[in-house]
Amino acid sequence: MTQLLSLFVENKSGVLARVVGLFSQRGYNIETLNVAPTEDPTISLITLSTTTDQRGTEQVIKQINKLIEVLKVVPFDPIIHVAREMSLVRVRVSESNRLEIIEISKSFRARVLDSNAQSCIFEMTEQPKKIDSFLQKMRAYGVLEIHRTGRLSLGRCNIEKKKDRFEA
Amino acid sequence: MTQLLSLFVENKSGVLARVVGLFSQRGYNIETLNVAPTEDPTISLITLSTTTDQRGTEQVIKQINKLIEVLKVVPFDPIIHVAREMSLVRVRVSESNRLEIIEISKSFRARVLDSNAQSCIFEMTEQPKKIDSFLQKMRAYGVLEIHRTGRLSLGRCNIEKKKDRFEA
Repeated sequence: MTQLLSLFVENKSGVLARVVGLFSQRGYNIETLNVAPTEDPTISLITLSTTTDQRGTEQVIKQINKLIEVLKVVPFDPIIHVAREMSLVRVRVSESNRLEIIEISKSFRARVLDSNAQSCIFEMTEQPKKIDSFLQKMRAYGVLEIHRTGRLSLGRCNIEKKKDRFEA
Repeated sequence: MTQLLSLFVENKSGVLARVVGLFSQRGYNIETLNVAPTEDPTISLITLSTTTDQRGTEQVIKQINKLIEVLKVVPFDPIIHVAREMSLVRVRVSESNRLEIIEISKSFRARVLDSNAQSCIFEMTEQPKKIDSFLQKMRAYGVLEIHRTGRLSLGRCNIEKKKDRFEA
């Protein structure tokens, strides 16, 4: 199971190294990771996904909390959080299929960032599953390059609406 | 100066720890970092920004290239690359200013992900400078939370069009 964790940490040199090092030492693989400063420049936010079971998640949260520079750890919960990922995808295009590919990209709410006669760069920000579907579709034409950010999450505004808006 | 670097690395446990550890040991601060698997599941892409001068950049690239799991290092060049960043922003809203705030967000091509009577979550994927401008505008209403991914980059399709499309 993939577990997404948000870590609020002190924005100091070496903190990221300690967090990443802890995962490495304990044998937990980090699949995706994001770090950037928050609105408070003394605090950075690390969002990472790791493959582990329920027990492993509890263990890793316990270990992370021992690091003095870690201020708060928030495990992702699809009921109370929204998740989004951004991807840049270069797709092979030809004169004959360009319009078709652009039409498909529109249905996925992907934007054309740049293009030439041979290829097109799309930017797509969505739930990770929808990005996977878009990539699946584009593979029929030829995916030349992909850059993904990994997921970011934020607490929902309307938890009571969870059933209507459940987005996994 | 902020230098953006793309590192293609082997998708193995411990590689991220070695890269991040190298920056930490050498005293280079990592401002933002992104890591996710690429289309080839054996290769991950790390995109990171660090504050250093030209000489520091050369030094750090030399050091990273010594790591056996690092396959390629590509320094960002605004002439040949496009850069995008994703952000999730929670803004304080009231009954009286909700429509006004949503109108402003549209002009920045930000999307409403979720909202209630007190706040609104926007998702915005753009050049980092444009995200900064949006945040600046939203601070007048109250920015309650920000999550940013840090930049991702991809080589442009039309390098000859650089003057028309220069996006810093």
